Amino acid sequence: MQTNVMIIGIAGGSGSGKTTLAERIMAHFGDRISVLRHDDYYKRHDELTYEERAKLNYDHPDAFDTDLLIRHLDLLRAGQAVDSPLYDYTVHNRSDRTRRVEPNPVILLEGILIFENAELCRRLDVKVYVDTDADVRIVRRILRDVKERARSLDSVINQYLSTVKPMHEAFVEPSKKHADVIIPEGGRNPVAYRILIDRIEKHLSEV
Amino acid sequence: MQTNVMIIGIAGGSGSGKTTLAERIMAHFGDRISVLRHDDYYKRHDELTYEERAKLNYDHPDAFDTDLLIRHLDLLRAGQAVDSPLYDYTVHNRSDRTRRVEPNPVILLEGILIFENAELCRRLDVKVYVDTDADVRIVRRILRDVKERARSLDSVINQYLSTVKPMHEAFVEPSKKHADVIIPEGGRNPVAYRILIDRIEKHLSEV
Repeated sequence: MQTNVMIIGIAGGSGSGKTTLAERIMAHFGDRISVLRHDDYYKRHDELTYEERAKLNYDHPDAFDTDLLIRHLDLLRAGQAVDSPLYDYTVHNRSDRTRRVEPNPVILLEGILIFENAELCRRLDVKVYVDTDADVRIVRRILRDVKERARSLDSVINQYLSTVKPMHEAFVEPSKKHADVIIPEGGRNPVAYRILIDRIEKHLSEV
Repeated sequence: MQTNVMIIGIAGGSGSGKTTLAERIMAHFGDRISVLRHDDYYKRHDELTYEERAKLNYDHPDAFDTDLLIRHLDLLRAGQAVDSPLYDYTVHNRSDRTRRVEPNPVILLEGILIFENAELCRRLDVKVYVDTDADVRIVRRILRDVKERARSLDSVINQYLSTVKPMHEAFVEPSKKHADVIIPEGGRNPVAYRILIDRIEKHLSEV
């Protein structure tokens, strides 16, 4: 049984910069911290065709197998390694591969909806919400999905207006209420980054 | 000339909890950090009667001698002690006494409007905005002013609606845009408090 484990949750809307912030923290600490991503816990949908899976609402809490994520968090906190699922965006389904995650005194969890689930939320010792204006977020999402994921501009904007935006307003934005710290701009905020780094370093030095 | 001085600004609306947060940080570090308060730099108004001074708008940026505060910050950063003015709320005027502030590698500045002034804002290395819902803030203000400052309920509410609220919406809330970190609830947020403590401790250990 590992004692004094600190679980840090980084939430925030699509395009907020939360993934950039999480990746910068991961790059700094390497394998000294454990990392889980809510996105890896999207539910498996083998019973649907690719076209059907592509039409699912991936921004609703029900899209995730959050129970499994919670079990994995509890195992990591107890000092046991877990096999995180991996999500394959190219087929819109869970991959058959998994990723071994070793336990550490600091666990980083990233995801848009991790503060929305009360059972998950109460397991988080430090709740960081990355808050970025909606216009900046859609601009970043367009650039990412069109340039990096080769999606059409129309499909990105349609998905944004039909599901991303309403789900953000229904579930993500209200979950900000649970945050301990709100960070504007996420990965592009060096002052806030440094504050989180110092907190994590201090915790690692104490265990 | 002192090098590597970190100036931390704590802003936020009346009743947000920013003073409680600042006081907890001061209690932790004692004379290892220097503290200035924008409120101490309210302009002197010897030319007005008590009744006239009581009617001034103390929530507008022009109520402060921010130029003097900036000079004092610059002196502290350069390693020189300053004599901070003191404000006497019982006479609504600057006191004849001053408070000697010694230089330190960390300077804490507190005030509702410290992010509103561009010259002041750019001197702050870490900008913390304490964000608390308006209903909670007025409740705290009522309790403080009625119980601790012996003001009537009517006068507190009148002042809130006539100046505090409109000035908050015109100057304080927009200044949140400059924050590096936003802290809900201020002094009642132990997770955020700990994060700030660790950042300051780290800075003090490096100089």
